[in-house]
Amino acid sequence: MKQKLIIVTTILFFSMVTFAQQALFGGAPIVSPEVKPDHTVTFRIQAPTADSVQITGDFLPPVKMKTQWGVMDVPGTANLNKDEKGIWTFTTQPLGSDLYSYTVIVDGFKTTDPNNVYIIRDVASVFNVFMVGGGKADLYMVNKVSHGSVTRRWYNSPGNGMQRRLTVYTPAGYETSKEKYPVLYLLHGAGGDEEAWIALGRASQILDNLIAQGKAKPMIVVMTNGNVIQEAAPGESNMGYYKPSFMIEHTMDGLFEETFPDVIKFVESNYQVKADKADRAIAGLSMGGYHSLHISRYYPNTFDYVGLFSAAIIPNEKVTSKVYENIDKTLETQMKNGYKLYWIGVGKTDFLYKNVTEYRDKLDKMGMKYVYRESEGGHTWTNWRVYLSEFAPLLFR
Amino acid sequence: MKQKLIIVTTILFFSMVTFAQQALFGGAPIVSPEVKPDHTVTFRIQAPTADSVQITGDFLPPVKMKTQWGVMDVPGTANLNKDEKGIWTFTTQPLGSDLYSYTVIVDGFKTTDPNNVYIIRDVASVFNVFMVGGGKADLYMVNKVSHGSVTRRWYNSPGNGMQRRLTVYTPAGYETSKEKYPVLYLLHGAGGDEEAWIALGRASQILDNLIAQGKAKPMIVVMTNGNVIQEAAPGESNMGYYKPSFMIEHTMDGLFEETFPDVIKFVESNYQVKADKADRAIAGLSMGGYHSLHISRYYPNTFDYVGLFSAAIIPNEKVTSKVYENIDKTLETQMKNGYKLYWIGVGKTDFLYKNVTEYRDKLDKMGMKYVYRESEGGHTWTNWRVYLSEFAPLLFR
Repeated sequence: MKQKLIIVTTILFFSMVTFAQQALFGGAPIVSPEVKPDHTVTFRIQAPTADSVQITGDFLPPVKMKTQWGVMDVPGTANLNKDEKGIWTFTTQPLGSDLYSYTVIVDGFKTTDPNNVYIIRDVASVFNVFMVGGGKADLYMVNKVSHGSVTRRWYNSPGNGMQRRLTVYTPAGYETSKEKYPVLYLLHGAGGDEEAWIALGRASQILDNLIAQGKAKPMIVVMTNGNVIQEAAPGESNMGYYKPSFMIEHTMDGLFEETFPDVIKFVESNYQVKADKADRAIAGLSMGGYHSLHISRYYPNTFDYVGLFSAAIIPNEKVTSKVYENIDKTLETQMKNGYKLYWIGVGKTDFLYKNVTEYRDKLDKMGMKYVYRESEGGHTWTNWRVYLSEFAPLLFR
Repeated sequence: MKQKLIIVTTILFFSMVTFAQQALFGGAPIVSPEVKPDHTVTFRIQAPTADSVQITGDFLPPVKMKTQWGVMDVPGTANLNKDEKGIWTFTTQPLGSDLYSYTVIVDGFKTTDPNNVYIIRDVASVFNVFMVGGGKADLYMVNKVSHGSVTRRWYNSPGNGMQRRLTVYTPAGYETSKEKYPVLYLLHGAGGDEEAWIALGRASQILDNLIAQGKAKPMIVVMTNGNVIQEAAPGESNMGYYKPSFMIEHTMDGLFEETFPDVIKFVESNYQVKADKADRAIAGLSMGGYHSLHISRYYPNTFDYVGLFSAAIIPNEKVTSKVYENIDKTLETQMKNGYKLYWIGVGKTDFLYKNVTEYRDKLDKMGMKYVYRESEGGHTWTNWRVYLSEFAPLLFR
């Protein structure tokens, strides 16, 4: 009998690809971060021979940093203190409810916390995440509710001459329902891709929770890749495992807007959707807000709901696409055609605040109605998750 | 005009959540790992104040490690050398084609390579991955072929009294086809979950490529979570972001096997599938091989194709489930009912080799036919990816 027990135990050991010896062979397992009932958070890093250990994260007081673009807020750092066992610790003040991100700096070497397996990539960086509940982040958590499905799927984009990848959220019950659903097209910012709203945006959890609470209508959410020179997110195309960098070619030059009908056509011929203006919404953050603005006026009778989250507004003057000709005229047409909601959200310290204000002035002068939401803070996922949480309940009413 | 250019540039900057300042403000970007045309791989770690930098990975010569279960092979380590800029480097020998994994050790602090954003979790550890092409790993890469869809979806498991998450691969063209497809149920090992075959197993790429080459029939692949006390993989259930550990409760005590009909029922009532024995296959690695063995004989007229990859064989004697009563008799019944393929693969140095050999002896004595594939190596994903690549083409012929 003992031999058989050993077999089972050994299987358990080996399937770790022998990468977790540390946990099995070296003392007590370290928990980091530990989110405590009082909403303080303790970080623990085992680095006995290090001279200094710090963390940097968006929950620490920001510091001013001088850059070529002016003085900017960047996440602050905190020093950890070493105990007699060589474990460095730091405990935060009580934190508000949110999803937070951080990295660890050991003797100047910046990397992830090896005891936190929850890691999200943003462009060429990875960082650890954790959540503090008891407030808005309760919407970002997987709760005991019915869950929608999340599918990574490829569609044909003749306008770009390629197969491209997108992420589709279908609400709980979609697959067995005979109903047709409305669609929210949800667009990422510069540097992001079809994974951004799922990973940092917590879109599937926000929708699951809002729908379960009866606060949002069941809807399909289509998350595209706005970098039209990419087929898919880094690592998901035939470019292999390359080091990601910003995609700046063709991201804001009209090509995404021009080829967006490929996405709509795919969705409306492949999903049980209501293919009409009243059941289409488009929203995005930053560059995705820019895309939403320009797509919705370039196809001025297509969307009844538009959401601009910390949106970029004005195209680069070097850009010559026909998409940006006659901006005022197409906005006018969009206004005359009518819509149900034009929602603009921006943070008070957002570096785009002034541009958004100028755009609102323009809309005011035209008499084009919108709902305005001004929040604290700046150009952050903290705000974009909140905007989605507030915007989604307003749709398809 | 200049101002507008600045706006666009600044957007690009800010959407990084200000986490990538290092790359923008600190010198040339570091590429690590760099896979070279001659299949050597160079690693680069920027850690100017460190005293020692090492990597440990499954491409380095293994070392023997004495454990309470005997002497085992664990991944070796290599020392990096520091250059005048404080960048530590190491270049491997030319490597065979495969997907490899590694971690970095800086002054005894074990973590990930900050310049490699491709990270996979296995139980409580995360590590970086890279691929070397020109051989078997070409099947693991995203190639210019038609891609299937990968869906994370929840099913109702009355047998476990919960909603549970699974991953479903549907082949390219499935959604628009009127055809019915065969199904492969593909099970993970101890410590894994419904993400394992997608992440380390490269199942969707292997299937995409084999189907595109005409080597495998288009099929649906259903990847379940074999830890029946879990609703979903760590971070994907209402348990939140906890530190993962091995699930040993109820993983090999019959409960998964008993409640497996919940999975089949869900799949056959929610997908366009051929719901008959000739179009059902079940395969798994290690614990998943054990599950495949016992499910296929406990429901002895359900699967025409069975794959045991480095399978555990014998239940713990303490387990009292009715699933493990009459093992010989149910195997006999399975044999008499007939099947098309009973495939057994194991590595020569696998710690389960002896158990698999004993099981083969038993089958030989019974006259129960099987195909046997003995490979080099041991209990590793290297072998399991190969086994899937060889097994899938044999199905549904």
